[in-house]
Amino acid sequence: MRSYTEIEVRYAETDQMGIVHHSVYPIWFEAARTHFSREMGVSYKEMENMGLMLPVRELSVKYLEPAKYGDTVTIETRAVRLTPSRILFHYRVLCGVRTLAEGETLHAWVGQDLRPVNLRKGFPKVYEAAFKAIEEP
Amino acid sequence: MRSYTEIEVRYAETDQMGIVHHSVYPIWFEAARTHFSREMGVSYKEMENMGLMLPVRELSVKYLEPAKYGDTVTIETRAVRLTPSRILFHYRVLCGVRTLAEGETLHAWVGQDLRPVNLRKGFPKVYEAAFKAIEEP
Amino acid sequence: MRSYTEIEVRYAETDQMGIVHHSVYPIWFEAARTHFSREMGVSYKEMENMGLMLPVRELSVKYLEPAKYGDTVTIETRAVRLTPSRILFHYRVLCGVRTLAEGETLHAWVGQDLRPVNLRKGFPKVYEAAFKAIEEP
Amino acid sequence: MRSYTEIEVRYAETDQMGIVHHSVYPIWFEAARTHFSREMGVSYKEMENMGLMLPVRELSVKYLEPAKYGDTVTIETRAVRLTPSRILFHYRVLCGVRTLAEGETLHAWVGQDLRPVNLRKGFPKVYEAAFKAIEEP
Repeated sequence: MRSYTEIEVRYAETDQMGIVHHSVYPIWFEAARTHFSREMGVSYKEMENMGLMLPVRELSVKYLEPAKYGDTVTIETRAVRLTPSRILFHYRVLCGVRTLAEGETLHAWVGQDLRPVNLRKGFPKVYEAAFKAIEEP
Repeated sequence: MRSYTEIEVRYAETDQMGIVHHSVYPIWFEAARTHFSREMGVSYKEMENMGLMLPVRELSVKYLEPAKYGDTVTIETRAVRLTPSRILFHYRVLCGVRTLAEGETLHAWVGQDLRPVNLRKGFPKVYEAAFKAIEEP
Repeated sequence: MRSYTEIEVRYAETDQMGIVHHSVYPIWFEAARTHFSREMGVSYKEMENMGLMLPVRELSVKYLEPAKYGDTVTIETRAVRLTPSRILFHYRVLCGVRTLAEGETLHAWVGQDLRPVNLRKGFPKVYEAAFKAIEEP
Repeated sequence: MRSYTEIEVRYAETDQMGIVHHSVYPIWFEAARTHFSREMGVSYKEMENMGLMLPVRELSVKYLEPAKYGDTVTIETRAVRLTPSRILFHYRVLCGVRTLAEGETLHAWVGQDLRPVNLRKGFPKVYEAAFKAIEEP
């Protein structure tokens, strides 16, 4: 499964170089995960209501071309690996036919106390929905 | 009582106009309140640990001159009015002898459920510390 | 003329109080101005390309109810006053039938050097488009 | 050479998980690079005044333990690789004796038009200062 999230660049997201600041991309990735989780059948908000959280353990981004104010970008999101303790997402930031950036975020499944949980045992419905959404690279 | 908080402008705080984005000033004001509350004897972190929170009800800012990357600004902070339900802070953003901006934030004293509390009755120690820190304009 | 801008709350926009941080509303107002200017016939990007900029001189916000992750808010935007040197915008942040916040931003018409320009004389096409869009309060 | 930058966590930097949002770390890294470049003898502001810019091409972060409001963190910064076209920085985010996160940013030396420049030929003084500051891992 792939989700596609449209984002209009905000003026506040630019810096004095005249381009979108690199710290904004992880925020766009997160907005894209919100959509992805909704499309996969269990929204992130529902997960938190169940006592399940998904903090970021690793983040990587490659910046190929700058995004600018006036651009509308599309984030293509895939979940590419799932274990009972982890999930890995991959993102492409597109502007028309150009790829502006690519990135990955690795997350841990944790409870409200931020301690690891076994997703398959503790939240089988979420595990199943995520499992079906995985797209091997 | 007045507190003075030094802040170095971050590159990420600039926008493509080449100046600090106006949405950054409320964040600086908040960093300044963190210092103010510590100097007044009850840090905001302690307040939250007691179950007391201080969300912003009103915000106003006048922008006189832009702050720029490379600047170190000083936030002069005063608490100018206190009631059992509200507190009003006033800020001046200084860069050397120039005043770059002035602002105010009005806050409500609330509990963890975000409902109003009577500070004088519920948290007399905090009320007393805040009362002593008030500087009439 | 009124423009209506839909914004999905981003997780990154929340703070540890569990609500959208108050510094986010000016950023939403700005995204709403981007839409407003496009609908009024001269986008803010076109203005900057003409050498015209519109920095914020005054900002005020009243926060009535918190926005939360999972909410989609609508920003209702009006331009309520225009002079050759200034423009005043008014915003309402709506979530369903509830008004979460109201705010205003006062802007100066300036050139790329951040110095004032007379909009009516220097940029009559923009002045005319803005003038038609004004809605007295 | 290593630089050490102290940063007090801002309330606005937290999210509803009660921890510092992961998108904040790249902003801290950048504040740390500002200090590093100043200590190395050519501040980033001076570089931009010379027409030299240093956008981020790659970013990676490992999050080990959360930072929280009330924490003062220290960013340990090293430049670990330099070529005429690139520079690689490494960061450790420390809170007391704990390492909260580690990260790297790879940057390209570019001109004001965002096109690559040969640092050694075009800006020998900067190249020399950066070369002296390199600390092999």
